[in-house]
Amino acid sequence: MSSHGQAAWELLLPAAAAPARRRGRALQEALREAVRSGRLAAGTRLPSTRALAADLGVSRGLVTEAYEQLTAEGYLRSDRGAGTWVGDAARGRTGGTPARGGGTVAQGTDPVTRARGAVARGAGPATRARGSGAPAVRVDFRPGTPDLSLFPRAAWSAAQRAVLSRLPHPALGYPDPRGVPELREALAGMLTRRRGVVADPERLVVCSGVAQASTLLGFVLRARGLDAVGIEDPGSPEHGRLFASTGLDTVWLPLDEEGLRTEPLAASGVRAVVVTPSHQFPSGIIWSAERRAALLDWARAVDGYVLEDDYDGDFRYDRAPVGALQGLDPERVVYAGSVSKSLAPGLRLGWMLVPEALLAEVVERKRTMDLGNPVLDQAVLAEFVTRGAYDRQLRRCQRAYRERRDALLSALAEHLPGTGVSGIAAGLHVIARVPGRYGPPERFLARSAEAGVALRPLEEYGTARPGDGDVRLVIGYAHLSPSVVTAGIRRVAEAVARG
Amino acid sequence: MSSHGQAAWELLLPAAAAPARRRGRALQEALREAVRSGRLAAGTRLPSTRALAADLGVSRGLVTEAYEQLTAEGYLRSDRGAGTWVGDAARGRTGGTPARGGGTVAQGTDPVTRARGAVARGAGPATRARGSGAPAVRVDFRPGTPDLSLFPRAAWSAAQRAVLSRLPHPALGYPDPRGVPELREALAGMLTRRRGVVADPERLVVCSGVAQASTLLGFVLRARGLDAVGIEDPGSPEHGRLFASTGLDTVWLPLDEEGLRTEPLAASGVRAVVVTPSHQFPSGIIWSAERRAALLDWARAVDGYVLEDDYDGDFRYDRAPVGALQGLDPERVVYAGSVSKSLAPGLRLGWMLVPEALLAEVVERKRTMDLGNPVLDQAVLAEFVTRGAYDRQLRRCQRAYRERRDALLSALAEHLPGTGVSGIAAGLHVIARVPGRYGPPERFLARSAEAGVALRPLEEYGTARPGDGDVRLVIGYAHLSPSVVTAGIRRVAEAVARG
Repeated sequence: MSSHGQAAWELLLPAAAAPARRRGRALQEALREAVRSGRLAAGTRLPSTRALAADLGVSRGLVTEAYEQLTAEGYLRSDRGAGTWVGDAARGRTGGTPARGGGTVAQGTDPVTRARGAVARGAGPATRARGSGAPAVRVDFRPGTPDLSLFPRAAWSAAQRAVLSRLPHPALGYPDPRGVPELREALAGMLTRRRGVVADPERLVVCSGVAQASTLLGFVLRARGLDAVGIEDPGSPEHGRLFASTGLDTVWLPLDEEGLRTEPLAASGVRAVVVTPSHQFPSGIIWSAERRAALLDWARAVDGYVLEDDYDGDFRYDRAPVGALQGLDPERVVYAGSVSKSLAPGLRLGWMLVPEALLAEVVERKRTMDLGNPVLDQAVLAEFVTRGAYDRQLRRCQRAYRERRDALLSALAEHLPGTGVSGIAAGLHVIARVPGRYGPPERFLARSAEAGVALRPLEEYGTARPGDGDVRLVIGYAHLSPSVVTAGIRRVAEAVARG
Repeated sequence: MSSHGQAAWELLLPAAAAPARRRGRALQEALREAVRSGRLAAGTRLPSTRALAADLGVSRGLVTEAYEQLTAEGYLRSDRGAGTWVGDAARGRTGGTPARGGGTVAQGTDPVTRARGAVARGAGPATRARGSGAPAVRVDFRPGTPDLSLFPRAAWSAAQRAVLSRLPHPALGYPDPRGVPELREALAGMLTRRRGVVADPERLVVCSGVAQASTLLGFVLRARGLDAVGIEDPGSPEHGRLFASTGLDTVWLPLDEEGLRTEPLAASGVRAVVVTPSHQFPSGIIWSAERRAALLDWARAVDGYVLEDDYDGDFRYDRAPVGALQGLDPERVVYAGSVSKSLAPGLRLGWMLVPEALLAEVVERKRTMDLGNPVLDQAVLAEFVTRGAYDRQLRRCQRAYRERRDALLSALAEHLPGTGVSGIAAGLHVIARVPGRYGPPERFLARSAEAGVALRPLEEYGTARPGDGDVRLVIGYAHLSPSVVTAGIRRVAEAVARG
């Protein structure tokens, strides 16, 4: 074993002694924590997977998996031939240089924001017919809604009863605007475990979801003198509307297959961006470790902030989800998530992890906005997370959604052969590229709509217009049963085949 | 009977035929509606109470009561000797001249807003000790909190179960930002009946309470070019903090014993005010009918708006509560209320009735702020109101609070004789003026605090500093049992009596 960081490898021994089924995760967590805390310094060369596995007495596969996972998340870097070493992207709570009161105004932005009529994910009822006289929607593939029939009514009801019978009277008074303490504790533990974030309950603010997190942050950044926020292209135009309500313009920033392109970001002049690095919306790519690191370098250089919208980070089907960007630099990344995809959007319950430098302003803004979230639902969610019911619910959704995704892929292969599907195996939607031979996009969409199938073209989410005749679609499948998914695609194929 | 409006008197006949226990209220509602709709025109002379009672076949007392109630609310005017006639304050939905897009900037304001450290009603935990080393608070007379032990846990729990078992799946999706339709229906009916407002469910926006209503309206008015809002002096400094978060200054406007003084209001240059006409906070006066009418005249003249904070309109102990100002002109008054005093502040559930001209902007602002309130609590409250459980809860609170108020008055008379109590018989607090012979105010407050009794001086709520040596207190009693109220006042008396 390498002589570097001998003590650090010993840090991993308790993890290696964990029960077999938890060992791989424990190893990853211990390694991540060692990097984050600085006990494994940037540049430290890691032992070979074979050597470390032997030292720890675990299988080599577990070590390989841990290295891959942490490389994907940006904690480690690797190069074929040169081995694996600790990257410099991670910044622990004590190691960073948090910005305070940075009042410089962002300059030189050339906003390409486009206000559009398109309903972004989650922004409207999923069954609204398009235009007057449009045929009724029978199968709605537009993305944004989970399967509401999976909401665990019995378990939620039981938790409600338990909460109402034990909650002390003062807990029904005016709330702490940051949220109910037991929920902040429970969420901090859950997010640390599931998403690899740095989740201090003192930095966790319960809010009504990612939309409110955007608005809260928008007001705070606006008050600090920023005048624009960058959003991913393709991305969610809804962010533009939310930031506009706080007085901020939005600027589309181009993506490639690795994440946000670095040069246009630097040239844009913005000092804040919203990103979805774990499963980019809507393209479905996962940001590369290099781009994650580059984004944080940029944020530090411009004294800026990153809002990480972890909208579906819980759903990955082929491997463990990639940890959140926030874990790499909790002083530059505002992490936001919610129960909208895992339980129900109607609960309006979410969370944000806030850099120390912004915390007081975000909390005061939350206070003047609504004095804090309702306490009963917060206490119920705390109960739910603590009892393990939230993890069970995620497993249940994951099984259901994976089955639906498989049904979608099979149906596309059978009924629209030649269709390419992209995006990692995750989330609640895929990007499908239907070859031009099925008809020009306008005709394809019109025929589908006439057949009662609602589809949303990718171009509603960004500025790209490839013009190659292919039909690019963002297909949401999570809210549909496998048989409906199959029937819907068959219906489309029949409709576009008619002369 | 007068020949004027013969048809209108006939309108009252169905009300006169109502069951005896509802007849008085039915008569008032019918009369109010007749004025509001214009079927009884401004200036119409009303028949004598004796004549109308004979025509309708009801007791004269009922008619007298109806005239008095509607005169207090500003619908009718009366003059000893000259009789009673229909006033010109009321403006129905169709009769008004709603302002649209009024972009003129308010001018000439001389803001006397004072940012203070005082915790306003409802703004903080009620048991926090003042300063370090302060003795523990044993009896906390600071106003703002209802008795949280009166929250109807069993009934709420039953309603939660009922809701979760019947709610259709789509109701768990992204909500209508205005609120759940069945709640808006239920609240519109309840508010029309209890508060005499014009409550069209289409104009009702569910929000998280009066604080959020202030913020929502503040943003909308700021976007229309206003730069300041008037607040009552004495009043709630918390409104100042809420409006400041929307970019608006606040201006203290002096009250006298009838309500907001008209000349300083006109001279202030503001075009929007927040008022508490049904039970002024904290003075406890009820605005006179003339001042209600004058305020609406002012609002129409300056193309302005009034936010009516109906924070405790449900609690009046000596007679039916005076109807809300909004009923007089729903196009100029934004009415806001919540369940914070009747159920629990922790529910964060309230409502606003919004003039047509502001509705779309308020709803869009609500949408970008949080996408709408959580749906389950909304559905539970709808169930609660529809089942009659909300009315039962109000009666229960009313009985409890009246008893506590009586205990407070007795204790003050016994232990601090000479203390004057003002404010109508309503609400959750009184104003007490303790004579200077009990010690100068600083000493009185310090001794009370040392004895573990938290008191809030009136001067924290406004600019007045009479300097006459008396101690003016805002005493909240609703959250304390009668025995605690009595013990607390005895404790104060003993503490200030010690040499």
